[in-house]
Amino acid sequence: MALDRTNLLAIDACTLRDRLATGAIRAIDLLEAYLAQIAEREPEVQAFAWIDPEHARKQAAALDEHRLRGRPTGPLHGLPIALKDVIDTVGIPTENGSVLDAGRKPMHDAFVTERLKAAGAIIIGKTVTTQLAFMDPGPTRNPHNLAHTPGGSSQGSAAAVAAAMVPLAIGTQTGGSVIRPASFCGVTGYKPTFGAIPRRGVLPQSPSLDTVGVFARSPAEAAMLAEVLFGYDAGDPATTLAPHPDLYRTAISEPPLKPVFAIVQPPGWKTADPDLRAAFDELAEELGEQAFVAPLPTVFDNAATIRARINFAEMARCYYTYGRDGGDQLGPQVRAAIDEGNTVLARDYLSALDMPKIMNAALEEIFERCDAILCPAATGPAPKGLKSTGDAIFNGLWTLCGTPAITIPAFTSASGLPMGLQLVAARGNDARLLRNANWLHTQIDQP
Amino acid sequence: MALDRTNLLAIDACTLRDRLATGAIRAIDLLEAYLAQIAEREPEVQAFAWIDPEHARKQAAALDEHRLRGRPTGPLHGLPIALKDVIDTVGIPTENGSVLDAGRKPMHDAFVTERLKAAGAIIIGKTVTTQLAFMDPGPTRNPHNLAHTPGGSSQGSAAAVAAAMVPLAIGTQTGGSVIRPASFCGVTGYKPTFGAIPRRGVLPQSPSLDTVGVFARSPAEAAMLAEVLFGYDAGDPATTLAPHPDLYRTAISEPPLKPVFAIVQPPGWKTADPDLRAAFDELAEELGEQAFVAPLPTVFDNAATIRARINFAEMARCYYTYGRDGGDQLGPQVRAAIDEGNTVLARDYLSALDMPKIMNAALEEIFERCDAILCPAATGPAPKGLKSTGDAIFNGLWTLCGTPAITIPAFTSASGLPMGLQLVAARGNDARLLRNANWLHTQIDQP
Repeated sequence: MALDRTNLLAIDACTLRDRLATGAIRAIDLLEAYLAQIAEREPEVQAFAWIDPEHARKQAAALDEHRLRGRPTGPLHGLPIALKDVIDTVGIPTENGSVLDAGRKPMHDAFVTERLKAAGAIIIGKTVTTQLAFMDPGPTRNPHNLAHTPGGSSQGSAAAVAAAMVPLAIGTQTGGSVIRPASFCGVTGYKPTFGAIPRRGVLPQSPSLDTVGVFARSPAEAAMLAEVLFGYDAGDPATTLAPHPDLYRTAISEPPLKPVFAIVQPPGWKTADPDLRAAFDELAEELGEQAFVAPLPTVFDNAATIRARINFAEMARCYYTYGRDGGDQLGPQVRAAIDEGNTVLARDYLSALDMPKIMNAALEEIFERCDAILCPAATGPAPKGLKSTGDAIFNGLWTLCGTPAITIPAFTSASGLPMGLQLVAARGNDARLLRNANWLHTQIDQP
Repeated sequence: MALDRTNLLAIDACTLRDRLATGAIRAIDLLEAYLAQIAEREPEVQAFAWIDPEHARKQAAALDEHRLRGRPTGPLHGLPIALKDVIDTVGIPTENGSVLDAGRKPMHDAFVTERLKAAGAIIIGKTVTTQLAFMDPGPTRNPHNLAHTPGGSSQGSAAAVAAAMVPLAIGTQTGGSVIRPASFCGVTGYKPTFGAIPRRGVLPQSPSLDTVGVFARSPAEAAMLAEVLFGYDAGDPATTLAPHPDLYRTAISEPPLKPVFAIVQPPGWKTADPDLRAAFDELAEELGEQAFVAPLPTVFDNAATIRARINFAEMARCYYTYGRDGGDQLGPQVRAAIDEGNTVLARDYLSALDMPKIMNAALEEIFERCDAILCPAATGPAPKGLKSTGDAIFNGLWTLCGTPAITIPAFTSASGLPMGLQLVAARGNDARLLRNANWLHTQIDQP
């Protein structure tokens, strides 16, 4: 008996994966459910930069055919996945959120696109990115309240998952571009350890910071997707030949001991939304012996400045031709960042690059005593209006450190919008971070 | 029967190594021969920044004792080796050629010091470096003519080998600091592929360029020494976990075919010493079918500017405290380079860092057709006077590319000073470069 759309969309991606693999659900039926949802929600949410239902149907048909012939299926067989439009896809426009790249069709797939195709995923579409993955917003609206921003820069990916138009999506984070929109849209966003997912074929903005991340409805689903993407690629010097982690299996396993969280109030805490602070304090209290307050080392006081210096200096290099030829096609925020980047001295840039090492050393003392750092994912709920994508001050410090971070929906604001918690672990501890996030996710009443 | 000093010093280091291992020569006897030579030549050559005969004798006695007990000996057992004074040695002053570091005694050995000790070498002393391994010269004189510079910055190491005060020495090259002084002093200098020898514990001047190199009297000896130093160290991100190359065995093997050389006239050729150019042209002619002229790709026209930009920008960062606190203790050349480095924009620095990749791609076409590039090691013989260490224009381009380079003595100037040839290979082709250099070395009448 075929499930109706509402029922299909309610099934988590891990269960879907298992049923798609056995043929209990056909790829084409699942796809049609998502396409119907897209037809309904996309006109108002505007999460997609490109979508072609027929192209998606062809992939689904081929995957069903493949399975019916008894051929082995990939770990994401038949799951529709959307990619932020800074990720190269052969034959599919990849326009980086800029009219300067209008009509651009890459010659090669990005590493992550290759991995998704090999895993049997359906590339259902490309999602809206802010202009060049920076702060000038695209048209996407927050599915929880269309008058509010979905956050940025991976705004389409976060909104598409939140509106159940896709079960899974890919984004990128250079400041707070995965965690913040996930928090604003009430979904799970996961930014792995810097270098865990190769960035070949992803628009470079700031190679010392750029990180590929994923969106899903839960940590388990995020783990399942990320596990397919972790790897080494000679084209990305940040990656290393390390054994492949069992992200999914670890994520869904029971922690051997109840996890202990270090409660951190990052710079910007004092001006954060009072409701958020109250809710967060209450949660910390509920955790009781499982939480302790950890003052952030003072070296983090300048984290935002340091991160911006690296970001803007590398952006001035990476976006040189955009800056030179862009004229008034370039958004004011990108333009300002390039202009500022053009003034950064190499000496100051190099000394900024030394900071993550010092910061991570300072964090060791905290990580020795806890399973994860716990802090809010954003300074409050999604702000009203579409002109700003919100404040990334609670995210940039972790991007700078290269530590893995994940957000799960946890609270609801007075205005009825979701607000996320953020868990952070030491670099390389992705599997355990996902397990602890999964544990916390099961403890919290979902808003 | 004990050999006298002249006889001992005439034996090449590879033969010495074999005889030391069997006990045919005792470490203490060999050391005494070198100490006697040092006593004779050092007062005028001034190659050493630090030397302690008693400390060396203790090492030699321990090594002889070790061998007599039948314990396994290392691959450099009993060979006295001198280290440029920018390489950290526990308990032994490492002053970086600067009064600002007077009396500095490192807490840890450099990677190369550790390797030498483990190989059974005798750390006989530290050699003079120009101030902070840049262009303000130390007191060292050219052993071939004391009125002339030995070159820089590894001036003490080159002069010590040239004066037969040590059989082997270690240096570093950021511009032309191994190849140029070796050429001026009439010895072999070898700068391996960038990243081949870990730099942990070596004064960082420009981490994108700094390369550890070796001095010896022949390519075979250089290969023997370098083989001990190649490796991986987590403290040096330029190093990789690659299989250890058989540098020595390859170096002394016969090339399967007669090597073919690409004759290259690098930027600066036209203003080089006319005698050198004539001698080089003559050699190229003698090589006949084994040589062809290869125009250097135009991308190399700006190599010197690009290299200087990287060097000075990174120097401004690495030498920040020297610049801030150095006052008039800082040499004018270092000061000027830091000042210039302080003006480099991050954007221009980052775009300079992109150039080596482009340059190496452009060299591929040449390397496909030859076994090595052949060009002069310096623009002429060692200039008169000790105020300048000479011109590195024939070296900086290869340092920028990270290609391995080696110089062997080949010509004699009208003034009676040695002039070296330089062989260059593609990155990673160190063993074959050494084999081709060894082949050429055996073909050339040594000056």
